[in-house]
Amino acid sequence: MLPIAVDAMGGDKAPKEIVEGAKLAVDELGLPVVLVGQPEALGDAGGLEVIPASEVIGMRDDPAQGVRRKKDSSLVRAAEAVRDGKAAAMVSAGNTGATMGAALLRMGRLKGVQRPAIATPIPVPGQTPTVLLDAGANAECTPTYLLQFAQMGAAFATARYGIRDPKVALLSIGEEDTKGTSLVKEARGLLAGAGLNFVGNVEGRDLMSDAADVVVTDGFTGNVALKTLEGSLKFLIGAIFEAFNSSEEAKSASGVLLDALAPAAAELDPDATGGAMLLGVEGVCIISHGSSSARAIVNAVRVAGEMVDGQLVERLRGAVAAG
Amino acid sequence: MLPIAVDAMGGDKAPKEIVEGAKLAVDELGLPVVLVGQPEALGDAGGLEVIPASEVIGMRDDPAQGVRRKKDSSLVRAAEAVRDGKAAAMVSAGNTGATMGAALLRMGRLKGVQRPAIATPIPVPGQTPTVLLDAGANAECTPTYLLQFAQMGAAFATARYGIRDPKVALLSIGEEDTKGTSLVKEARGLLAGAGLNFVGNVEGRDLMSDAADVVVTDGFTGNVALKTLEGSLKFLIGAIFEAFNSSEEAKSASGVLLDALAPAAAELDPDATGGAMLLGVEGVCIISHGSSSARAIVNAVRVAGEMVDGQLVERLRGAVAAG
Repeated sequence: MLPIAVDAMGGDKAPKEIVEGAKLAVDELGLPVVLVGQPEALGDAGGLEVIPASEVIGMRDDPAQGVRRKKDSSLVRAAEAVRDGKAAAMVSAGNTGATMGAALLRMGRLKGVQRPAIATPIPVPGQTPTVLLDAGANAECTPTYLLQFAQMGAAFATARYGIRDPKVALLSIGEEDTKGTSLVKEARGLLAGAGLNFVGNVEGRDLMSDAADVVVTDGFTGNVALKTLEGSLKFLIGAIFEAFNSSEEAKSASGVLLDALAPAAAELDPDATGGAMLLGVEGVCIISHGSSSARAIVNAVRVAGEMVDGQLVERLRGAVAAG
Repeated sequence: MLPIAVDAMGGDKAPKEIVEGAKLAVDELGLPVVLVGQPEALGDAGGLEVIPASEVIGMRDDPAQGVRRKKDSSLVRAAEAVRDGKAAAMVSAGNTGATMGAALLRMGRLKGVQRPAIATPIPVPGQTPTVLLDAGANAECTPTYLLQFAQMGAAFATARYGIRDPKVALLSIGEEDTKGTSLVKEARGLLAGAGLNFVGNVEGRDLMSDAADVVVTDGFTGNVALKTLEGSLKFLIGAIFEAFNSSEEAKSASGVLLDALAPAAAELDPDATGGAMLLGVEGVCIISHGSSSARAIVNAVRVAGEMVDGQLVERLRGAVAAG
């Protein structure tokens, strides 16, 4: 396999944790990795190959301007490495909008796809995650975009989680087909007639359940839902830890409960999901969350390798062309 | 005060828990309550006055048809009691859409208000709740609707929680004013120029925080966010209880931790919030959640009484007229 290109400069903990994660990925997974970034900033790269890039698109930079102006940035160079056949896939924990922009402009859009979408796995402990898309690439969508998101999301759920005929649902505000916006109502007809295993509308409360394997929505609603979910889990986990530390008695009682909670906590850990996937570009592109640790990068590289092996891009092409 | 009209037939646990709650409200709060429903179905009404209504709009009935066809339903009769000066406010745990419809058609829209909105308090333990609106009344909105939601939401936060100059925010997918849909971008300008304490955009993760007192959005996004939040909290609370019951050792350790978690759990309990409020109609109308217990009804009656005393409707009228 060609190496996985890891943007060493992207993310709140870059470059240290990213480089550390890349080295761990090579050691643990035996996958080839190439770092992309400023060689002098990387510290000990552990002998990994480095594609030099003199510029960095910051987390708060304007994505479109960043990609246009910083042609020698790590993000742009990583996407070019995939385009030029020097890397099999790219992984970045940097600026999400700029990652999308670099992938779209340098790798190109998948033929027939109107808009790429961000597919984010929502962990459902004890079960396969729910794939939510679009999680933020396109604030405004047409019914046809949603149809293509459904096709790509289903192909991704098969490639990523081995689900043969994934249950696809549309995010709405009630199960009835009369509920929702005109976008939802029009998309519902398209999805029902597309040969997918379409199970109808689901609500926000169904995201963390087995109601559907793939939940389709516009990027505005998807992003709000995802952030709401992250915020509420973070809030409640904080409240639990506060309670566990509220007294000496609570502290000593908490050990056994933390052990019991550990499996679910491990599955809910955003570092464990392998990151979000940009679907609809000519290559495998993983968007890790901004606070990615070395462990998150290991998982992202692992998933990138699996998606290259599993021919994700070919599957997406087929899914959209067949629809 | 005129009595609070309680729809005895609405909700998953109606009429038993509803009647029980109404009786408790009279005993505990000293507020007058009138039940609305089928007298023969109510069991022991504890001497409470009953406005007879022979029909029931079911939880799954089509709201518009229900209100139009079932003119002698408890929901329609409750709204008429407010209109006719026989009740000070109405409370229902029944069909949300039908509650809105009955209130809108029978009480009437507040002068100057283009669309009523559902304002739902999102509990933030240790702090005042965040008022989210619209939580589902209007799937599609204009920028002007959102402006009026902001004006009404701020007036409600003042009346309900005593917040003098509530922080009002717009729900979006990034703080930057370039982020979001065209609806959000246009509304942002209106809200910034309306004399409100407008703090800009917030994200889904800010709902359970002190970032804003009032968060404004369209009814589709608001409903998805609310349901996502409810779903994730329910999921995580379930996982905690499972861990607490996972072994004898865990069970015996959990007592002290449950005590420590109790205050936050009490604030997160949906029965404790007093329900959602329909803002923009000519009367106080509380929409309790479908699974309301007797305790939820007590809290709803209490809040209804406070909002009548606090002249909520006059405040809303003034807020929209001044904007």
